[in-house]
Amino acid sequence: MPAAKRLGRRPGESGTRAAILAAARTQFADNGFDAASVRAIAGAAGVDPALVLHYFGSKAALFTAAMEFPFRPEEIAERVLDGPRDEIGRRLARFFLSNWEDPARRDALMALLRAATTSTDAAAMLRERIGERVLLPVGAHLGLPDAPLRMSLCGSHLVGLAMARYIVRIEPIASLDAEAVADLVAPALQRYLTGTLEI
Amino acid sequence: MPAAKRLGRRPGESGTRAAILAAARTQFADNGFDAASVRAIAGAAGVDPALVLHYFGSKAALFTAAMEFPFRPEEIAERVLDGPRDEIGRRLARFFLSNWEDPARRDALMALLRAATTSTDAAAMLRERIGERVLLPVGAHLGLPDAPLRMSLCGSHLVGLAMARYIVRIEPIASLDAEAVADLVAPALQRYLTGTLEI
Repeated sequence: MPAAKRLGRRPGESGTRAAILAAARTQFADNGFDAASVRAIAGAAGVDPALVLHYFGSKAALFTAAMEFPFRPEEIAERVLDGPRDEIGRRLARFFLSNWEDPARRDALMALLRAATTSTDAAAMLRERIGERVLLPVGAHLGLPDAPLRMSLCGSHLVGLAMARYIVRIEPIASLDAEAVADLVAPALQRYLTGTLEI
Repeated sequence: MPAAKRLGRRPGESGTRAAILAAARTQFADNGFDAASVRAIAGAAGVDPALVLHYFGSKAALFTAAMEFPFRPEEIAERVLDGPRDEIGRRLARFFLSNWEDPARRDALMALLRAATTSTDAAAMLRERIGERVLLPVGAHLGLPDAPLRMSLCGSHLVGLAMARYIVRIEPIASLDAEAVADLVAPALQRYLTGTLEI
């Protein structure tokens, strides 16, 4: 592997993966998903493009692995789970929309959503991450046996809300105040989380 | 315009647009959005690629203009609006999911969703078409002054449901029976359509 040799050491697989991820993060943030190339990322990491594809499979999968998932589990615990149980729908909607209202996070979220609609690899990685970082902790907190169903219903509504408000820009959802939108969808989320579901 | 000359007549703008749209429909259906090219569509329509871009702006915009919007207004009237008013949420959810369950329509719907997440032109055209073909007729039928808000809330939930079930494939939503999923979301849609909204 001549590229690794050029770095003057043999970093091993985990070091090489970390270098590729760091280079990918910079390239995706600077150029966006479409304009960033595996070749440029490999060049910045000092490895062969084939190695990037060997480790990550595709540009979309690399993207999903490299981008920070914008919802940190500890933030969800603090801002969504803490507080009255009958207000959790409203807190979840407000937390979700406040992330999309932040321009830096919105770019990352839009890029994730775009990658997931165009790449099954990216969709799979997004799904795993949502499961691990959001569905499991919130489900455990709620203590309901059908938490995955409840959380996936919430997730589907929230993803669609982001599509309608920020991507397709359907009115009046696109122009309403974020808190007003959160209040409109809160009862639906609350029912999914703690209500009776006919299954 | 030598390409139009080659056809032996001057069809005028509307004839040329129709020829481009017909060629685009064939190319997109045969090759999918990503593999279809403006050059091949222009070739099949007997015009210069620059003219295609002049009329439609981008491949994504051409795609949205060319593809049949999979929900016909008369079908929405028959299958969603006719029937008890307190069951309209369930009928809307079942109608929406039955379209996605049909493999041919699913391909068109997925392609529309992909184009809308990656192109602002395609998103704008999707938005206009949803407004014209779905929001206006259903809103008029419901006779509610805030029908656009109600319909856009429904639309946001349904789009997200399609993302979760068919694209990101979050479980258990991805594997449940379509009618069971429709029944789960029906109360949320019913509230958006005919319930009290705190605005």
